[in-house]
Amino acid sequence: MPGQRADARRNYTRILDVAEEEVAAHGADASLERIARIAGVGSATVRRHFPSRRALLEAVFRERIEALCALAVDLAGAADARDALLEWLSALTAYAASARGLATALALDAADGPDEAHVNACSTKLTGAADPLLVRAAREGAVTPGVTVADLVALISGIALATEHHEDPAAEADRLLGLTMAGVSPRR
Amino acid sequence: MPGQRADARRNYTRILDVAEEEVAAHGADASLERIARIAGVGSATVRRHFPSRRALLEAVFRERIEALCALAVDLAGAADARDALLEWLSALTAYAASARGLATALALDAADGPDEAHVNACSTKLTGAADPLLVRAAREGAVTPGVTVADLVALISGIALATEHHEDPAAEADRLLGLTMAGVSPRR
Repeated sequence: MPGQRADARRNYTRILDVAEEEVAAHGADASLERIARIAGVGSATVRRHFPSRRALLEAVFRERIEALCALAVDLAGAADARDALLEWLSALTAYAASARGLATALALDAADGPDEAHVNACSTKLTGAADPLLVRAAREGAVTPGVTVADLVALISGIALATEHHEDPAAEADRLLGLTMAGVSPRR
Repeated sequence: MPGQRADARRNYTRILDVAEEEVAAHGADASLERIARIAGVGSATVRRHFPSRRALLEAVFRERIEALCALAVDLAGAADARDALLEWLSALTAYAASARGLATALALDAADGPDEAHVNACSTKLTGAADPLLVRAAREGAVTPGVTVADLVALISGIALATEHHEDPAAEADRLLGLTMAGVSPRR
């Protein structure tokens, strides 16, 4: 029935709006019950639209993830392959350091391994977008052999999680990213 | 009164025993109320012995931290400065990946900065212990200039947090540590 479908759409939008605020305030552990209460729907309705916490987090972060994917496309034609990769990783780090809950969602995705990741997962989209930048940089010898986008996403998630309570998370995360790229103890 | 002091000691020991189990099971967010309930004391008693969550975490991790400090002393005389530092960092990573809650506690300490860290903080002890290893490796040119022990603790905390849900956290954390040390994109 059209009325029911319109109701469902309105519920979806309302739950997502509330979820964005709650995740920004409380991170990936935001209470699903609280989200349902504020949105004025039952817990069963939240579960119907978002079968898991992760499904909800993915919806919350979808716009940011898509902006990062678009940036990767823009950078694919940059003059220097290493600079292009570093710029994209720096943008991902800035997002992950500013968006509470994103790093946790990425770390959960990374734990799945490539086989289990589902199509909509944040990290699957990011991997598809960033892979050409990594492949090009690796071909030019600018990246340690064997490094995958999943490795980079895991390292950046970790940096974002470790700097979450820092007084300037974005600046500190970017500094630690620089250290990770250059190496703490590179063999010369 | 001696009786009261003995009671207080028994309470302290009982709370700490319960806290170790709860932190191992639930990580750094373990419920203080639940710890009080299982230990059979009031929340006020927990707060009197451990004024903050962090104070409780520090007590829980004290033995592991002291073992790491002892290892640093052992490694100070090793033949190769870089190998000694890497072995110690690898041991810290193994601990952080296996001890739920430790990485969170270290990340909180790191966020304070050196001025605010209190004497008993996990990271203060680790920094004091690891600094000679880092200074020696840096003097031999085996470490990127400017790197501090706090940087290393932050990077390792992040790696442990990012790999917490991995199927083999210790192995994955050690691999990412190796990548961080060698550099993802070292300048040659």
